[in-house]
Amino acid sequence: MSLPNLLNHLKQSAALEQVAGLLSWDQEAVMPPRGAEQRSEQSGTLAAVIHARNGDPRVAEWIAGIDRANLDAFDRRNVDEAQRTYDQATKIPSRLAEESAKAASEGQRTWAAARAAKDFSQFVPALKRNIELKREEASCLADAGQDHYDALLDQFEPGARAADLLPLLESLRPSLVALREKIADKPAPLPLSGHFPASAQMNLAKKIATRIGYDFEAGRIDTVVHPFCSGNGGDVRITTRTDEADPLNCLYSTVHEVGHALYAQGAPDPFLPAADYCSMGVHESQSRFWENQVGRSRAFADWLYPAMNEAFGGLNLDGPDDLYAAVNRVETGFIRTEADEVHYNLHILLRFELERELVSGTLEVDDLEEAWNTRFKRDFGLDVPDASLGVLQDVHWSLGLFGYFPTYSLGNIYSACLDQAMLADMPDREVMIRSATTQPILDWLRDKIHSKGRVLPAPDLIEQATGEVPTAQPLIDYLEAKFSALYDL
Amino acid sequence: MSLPNLLNHLKQSAALEQVAGLLSWDQEAVMPPRGAEQRSEQSGTLAAVIHARNGDPRVAEWIAGIDRANLDAFDRRNVDEAQRTYDQATKIPSRLAEESAKAASEGQRTWAAARAAKDFSQFVPALKRNIELKREEASCLADAGQDHYDALLDQFEPGARAADLLPLLESLRPSLVALREKIADKPAPLPLSGHFPASAQMNLAKKIATRIGYDFEAGRIDTVVHPFCSGNGGDVRITTRTDEADPLNCLYSTVHEVGHALYAQGAPDPFLPAADYCSMGVHESQSRFWENQVGRSRAFADWLYPAMNEAFGGLNLDGPDDLYAAVNRVETGFIRTEADEVHYNLHILLRFELERELVSGTLEVDDLEEAWNTRFKRDFGLDVPDASLGVLQDVHWSLGLFGYFPTYSLGNIYSACLDQAMLADMPDREVMIRSATTQPILDWLRDKIHSKGRVLPAPDLIEQATGEVPTAQPLIDYLEAKFSALYDL
Repeated sequence: MSLPNLLNHLKQSAALEQVAGLLSWDQEAVMPPRGAEQRSEQSGTLAAVIHARNGDPRVAEWIAGIDRANLDAFDRRNVDEAQRTYDQATKIPSRLAEESAKAASEGQRTWAAARAAKDFSQFVPALKRNIELKREEASCLADAGQDHYDALLDQFEPGARAADLLPLLESLRPSLVALREKIADKPAPLPLSGHFPASAQMNLAKKIATRIGYDFEAGRIDTVVHPFCSGNGGDVRITTRTDEADPLNCLYSTVHEVGHALYAQGAPDPFLPAADYCSMGVHESQSRFWENQVGRSRAFADWLYPAMNEAFGGLNLDGPDDLYAAVNRVETGFIRTEADEVHYNLHILLRFELERELVSGTLEVDDLEEAWNTRFKRDFGLDVPDASLGVLQDVHWSLGLFGYFPTYSLGNIYSACLDQAMLADMPDREVMIRSATTQPILDWLRDKIHSKGRVLPAPDLIEQATGEVPTAQPLIDYLEAKFSALYDL
Repeated sequence: MSLPNLLNHLKQSAALEQVAGLLSWDQEAVMPPRGAEQRSEQSGTLAAVIHARNGDPRVAEWIAGIDRANLDAFDRRNVDEAQRTYDQATKIPSRLAEESAKAASEGQRTWAAARAAKDFSQFVPALKRNIELKREEASCLADAGQDHYDALLDQFEPGARAADLLPLLESLRPSLVALREKIADKPAPLPLSGHFPASAQMNLAKKIATRIGYDFEAGRIDTVVHPFCSGNGGDVRITTRTDEADPLNCLYSTVHEVGHALYAQGAPDPFLPAADYCSMGVHESQSRFWENQVGRSRAFADWLYPAMNEAFGGLNLDGPDDLYAAVNRVETGFIRTEADEVHYNLHILLRFELERELVSGTLEVDDLEEAWNTRFKRDFGLDVPDASLGVLQDVHWSLGLFGYFPTYSLGNIYSACLDQAMLADMPDREVMIRSATTQPILDWLRDKIHSKGRVLPAPDLIEQATGEVPTAQPLIDYLEAKFSALYDL
């Protein structure tokens, strides 16, 4: 009875994790402001309940009573994930878990104030505290001889090692810098401009979401400050935001979150860990694939242009070619979340480099702002005017999220690998995208990725899906072909 | 350290109860349909967590370590409530708790189908099962010599006894029947009619809610099938519904739920049991007070008539007098939830009488429909045409809620007691209501009721607030005066 008992325990823990996710969704999307204080107590208590369940001594007993050799790959993975979760819950002392939660909460508050004041020095003590605690956490989690950064990275990208990611991600840099420099000499395409009512944006966002396969019977869309996707199985909610001067923000946020949501709606089981998403990198590959390879394709502009024209009663752009150019404008800027496809991974490379040095101690927090600005100049050719446009722009480090950034670039790399393989399987894909009847594309992703859960490690899953060991080459090829044509390089 | 440990445990349990409440709100107000199956697992797992906490053996140890004589009334009540919750969790075997939850869920499903088919016999087996389990629950909970119905009633109206409620509630009957009969001979006032757009109804509902003191910074309003109020402290959400042929449904549902919400927003602490609402009867007194004594007063019609006129661009009624008559139309009908103030408590008396007999076994489920119809004829003078308009109209018994109905009438009785006392303290109250500047009314209720939590039993709380032992006389006086004037009796 060890396996059924374990699986039942895992299922109930996953149900409670879903409740915790709902509390976060509610807080961002619909909670009244004065609910914040109670919500903090609610979330904290629920987190403690889940933590106690994860480290329940019976889990170790059940695992010990299971003969792994007799299990299929799915249940073996369930047992391995149970062990992984049990280890994380028991290796980290509760004192450390509480201090980390508190430091993250204080870090986030301090960061927001420092960013508003454009003053990195205000954030230094909180960041030092976060790094100190993360180092302690890494030393609790790391196996003998394991790099401490890898112990943190593993929480987002199971099994990944910085030593493997480094050459993979760095192989992007020369092509991206060369592309950026060549494009800088070319005239910029006309941007979209005008006034775009929020309600018309939301109507079009819903229409796009439906057309590319999002199931509103198993989800909903709301507006928030920072869009995200929440939930899985039969209840996967997306969020977006509207800016009446720029409808592309709303529309492409929506497509991005729908990419995440399609993965979550396609999970083979809503509760078991082996059926959960493979890794953050694979999750991001799904959102990026729909956002960029589908949403920013020339074919999609053929569908989107008339749809936008109708939704907003006219556009300042003269047909799908102009819209395609406008949604793919390349512009060197300071902010990661606003970056185009050429610049995006350069932003990630910078952060990946700096956070490894922060965790290992080869870079001191006191020197971080200068290091950021120097390396930004190296990669982007620009002087950072103030910390809010530089080292203070992202929330991640304030929350203690070290090892998270590289999963964004992994997502871009994996999405290009999948794109290449899918095109080989599906030569008429452009025709589908042109009419936004993309069900075969979704079916392909469901078959190759969504239905596979977490049974394989991410690189193996991508290799199984594409027939090739994942490299950065498909992404480089895709970007060079796309932007050479767009900018006549 | 026993008291701080106990209070911390109670606070965390209350936080988890709030999460359970949020799951219900979400399910009714915003959850996508395909989320239902996972939600059931989420709610069930959370209920099991809360149940295990409530019966945690440490609770008994902490209570045993506390010297009650040294506590103030508030903390003594916290300890008593902890004991009460502990007893309920430990006296009911988990097998019975699970079977009751299952029977309630199945009962609700069977009831809905039977009601749709207007066929009581379809519901009989499920109702028998619910009653059997409730009898078993009552025998687990009852103290030696305690009436078993009282053990169930106590869950909604702590400390109440049917032997006390019976004369209190029955004392209403002669006056209500006499009023009903006298009004039946009089011409009915003109009803409101027209088309009332849902969005205009919601805008006006929000305006009314704000005017009578509901804090939207600590709440929100959504539409659902059956309106309710959820949460407490800084997050109290109300719900309503719209019927484009009848805006009074939306508006008076809103005022009713705001009445509940003002009580919950005014709780002295969001987590501790001694700060929780006193009883269901007292809760209902708050919703009924705002709905009837304020919302259906002649003075409020002076404010509401122009507000409705503006919201809907004209009405078929000719001024506040006509609106006052229309919102107080007396009409003998079959459905409790649609009943006017004259008929409402007659509906409750019928259910209170029948459910006591069902629990004691002096009435068999097989004979229930006939008993309902016979006694309905006795009290209302009408033949029940089918079970959906009779014994199958309410959800309560299908969910195993026995002992709940009398709290509705207690609410009406208490609201009239409070009304009488408030008028004595506040002779210019009509002036405030006329302009919907009702803050002094809310302040009075905050002072006398909301701030008092659950420290006193309900009758003592009302006596402390009004200076009189609560009786049905203020309600009888209020109804006779109001409807004699309205119907020229």
